[in-house]
Amino acid sequence: IHTKLPNVSTTIFSVMSKLATEHKAINLSQGFPNFETDKKLIDLVTIAMQKGYNQYAPMPGLLSLRETIAEKTNNLYGSNYHPETDVTVTSGATQAIFTIISAFIQPGDEVIIFKPAYDSYEPSIELFNGTIVPIQLSAPSFTVDWKEVANKITSKTKMMIINTPHNPTGTVLSKNDMLQLEALLKSTNIILLSDEVYEHIIFDGREHQSIAKYPGLAERAFITASFGKTFHTTGWKMGYCIAPKDLMTEFRKVHQFNVFCSNHPMQYALAEYLKTRDHYISLSAFYQEKRDVFLSLIKDSRFSCTPAAGTYFQLLDYSTITDDGDVAFAERLTKEHKIASIPVSVFNLNQQDDKVLRFCFAKTEDTLKRAAEVLCGI
Amino acid sequence: IHTKLPNVSTTIFSVMSKLATEHKAINLSQGFPNFETDKKLIDLVTIAMQKGYNQYAPMPGLLSLRETIAEKTNNLYGSNYHPETDVTVTSGATQAIFTIISAFIQPGDEVIIFKPAYDSYEPSIELFNGTIVPIQLSAPSFTVDWKEVANKITSKTKMMIINTPHNPTGTVLSKNDMLQLEALLKSTNIILLSDEVYEHIIFDGREHQSIAKYPGLAERAFITASFGKTFHTTGWKMGYCIAPKDLMTEFRKVHQFNVFCSNHPMQYALAEYLKTRDHYISLSAFYQEKRDVFLSLIKDSRFSCTPAAGTYFQLLDYSTITDDGDVAFAERLTKEHKIASIPVSVFNLNQQDDKVLRFCFAKTEDTLKRAAEVLCGI
Ligand SMILES: CSCCC(=O)C(=O)O
Ligand SMILES: CSCCC(=O)C(=O)O
Repeated sequence: IHTKLPNVSTTIFSVMSKLATEHKAINLSQGFPNFETDKKLIDLVTIAMQKGYNQYAPMPGLLSLRETIAEKTNNLYGSNYHPETDVTVTSGATQAIFTIISAFIQPGDEVIIFKPAYDSYEPSIELFNGTIVPIQLSAPSFTVDWKEVANKITSKTKMMIINTPHNPTGTVLSKNDMLQLEALLKSTNIILLSDEVYEHIIFDGREHQSIAKYPGLAERAFITASFGKTFHTTGWKMGYCIAPKDLMTEFRKVHQFNVFCSNHPMQYALAEYLKTRDHYISLSAFYQEKRDVFLSLIKDSRFSCTPAAGTYFQLLDYSTITDDGDVAFAERLTKEHKIASIPVSVFNLNQQDDKVLRFCFAKTEDTLKRAAEVLCGI
Repeated sequence: IHTKLPNVSTTIFSVMSKLATEHKAINLSQGFPNFETDKKLIDLVTIAMQKGYNQYAPMPGLLSLRETIAEKTNNLYGSNYHPETDVTVTSGATQAIFTIISAFIQPGDEVIIFKPAYDSYEPSIELFNGTIVPIQLSAPSFTVDWKEVANKITSKTKMMIINTPHNPTGTVLSKNDMLQLEALLKSTNIILLSDEVYEHIIFDGREHQSIAKYPGLAERAFITASFGKTFHTTGWKMGYCIAPKDLMTEFRKVHQFNVFCSNHPMQYALAEYLKTRDHYISLSAFYQEKRDVFLSLIKDSRFSCTPAAGTYFQLLDYSTITDDGDVAFAERLTKEHKIASIPVSVFNLNQQDDKVLRFCFAKTEDTLKRAAEVLCGI
């Protein structure tokens, strides 16, 4: 059997979650909350099933949900997306990302990505024999040098993928970043994929820089978004993407033959639930408190950090503790100290090891306390 | 914007369902039941959500569900699939098919398909610059000439896609077909994709010829299956695929970066529900009665047919009624007579038009009666 992905094995998220289970470790590796979603949202799914929303949804998604999404986006970011043509509901943001890459990347096309990068981007590009053009960012600030980016653009550059708030680093792009990016792409045909799944998790009064705010970017861009991250339902596999009509037309050509449509009763429930905007408006404060609790509890540990600016992930630097590589150290922490995290080197160019681990703080206060106790003892 | 799929527009299923809605026509086009799923299954989803199955499932699927699937398959077909390595739960069978093609097809690889063919196969292959090698079957029997197939095999043949019971024709492959196929593939490395989503809908005492029954086929094959077709929940987008470990390893490499995993609470519900086997064992009789009711009600119409051997689709020949092309006739039936069907030419090589339309009989008796009344008046 010939493999199209010789360098790919099981994603680090599955590997570390499995190791955590095997060793009964506190699992701060794979990103998901260990508390429950709103009972009201669960009840709405039950109601949808009982009402009979059990057959295929329209291929691009339930219109009422697309309307709510377009309205929410346009209200928040001053954009002008149309629900019929510009929004498609997907089976999670990862499926949206895979489908966007499927719809556009051909052999030899270059795709600029920033490292550390979420691990689905590269294999998806490789599957279509696209060429990955990586730009490695540096800890701890992970700022982008847009001149370096300009130098990487060629006539073959088909797509660029950005991600803000950023997983795994917890950093965000600034308004200045977006303006520089806008200037850079102006005279090109590059398609922008803006992974904004943590748009509602951003801290210390920062403003999320959605590309929807920048017409010069939005006109060439897909935004991917996630209900799982926002409503604590990562296992429902519900997300969506937004793009101008011409781009979305190409997306849907592929989407209809990938999953055809997404879960119908859950679309109905989310459409109803989204009518109240409190849920996502209060999310940043909710997670900022968790971040602060976690960081204050480990402030006397030997780990050091820059507080996350967004997402529900915190990088911790362990370089004063050991010379171990981060993969080895993450394994040892899981097996011996019973706490699981994600080694960041797996997302870096050439597995560059900055001796940082990623911890997910989307956990109950009790879990965060137990985790902090362990970390303080290391 | 460059399109990778210049010949693809919106799938016929969306087109006809939309036309049906616009013209308030009885919708026998897109394949889905218009009656409800078992309330017990709905309740199990609610229980799963309340129990907290709302975060990511394991990437290949909930183990208890995979165990039930392997056990069911091995019991029914005498195979020996292992739940850990050989079964992956997917977001519908279409997603499984797309992912299989993604995992194996490279530029220039040839894929043999039989026409009329489900419309997702070809664009999925084209996306990877694979070469489609179509074999057109002929109405009304649609039997395969395996010598013709043998002549199409070259050193570049990477995959063959079969589908039994067959959509859109309602025909099934026989034991003899399978033995001939087994002999044909014996000395090759061809991967077989066996689309068996209608495995539990087969009529008149016929036996479903799953490739799981034929070790010489199973060793090189993926089987795709659908909970939506079997449990009247097409909108839940739940399915699975089965293959020997080595093939499944490659599948999962892509699956994890396409959807990562499928809906967790629904997996839990299906695992519980599948413990009682009555549901799928009685499905053939359930749909055979619907087929028989429908056919007896239209026996005096001007449409003629060979009764479907499986699936919930019936082809009707209208050649004595008009010389209209099937696309035009299907449109006219929807707009003027208020009954929607699927023109079969869209699935044929060069849109060959045999003057047959496909009608879905997964409908309540009342709907079938109203549909038959319309058809008898044409
Ligand atoms: C799809 S599993 C990974 C979940 C996640 O987004 C993360 O942990 O980064
Ligand atoms: C995914 S919509 C098509 C449903 C179906 O299987 C059919 O009508 O053939």
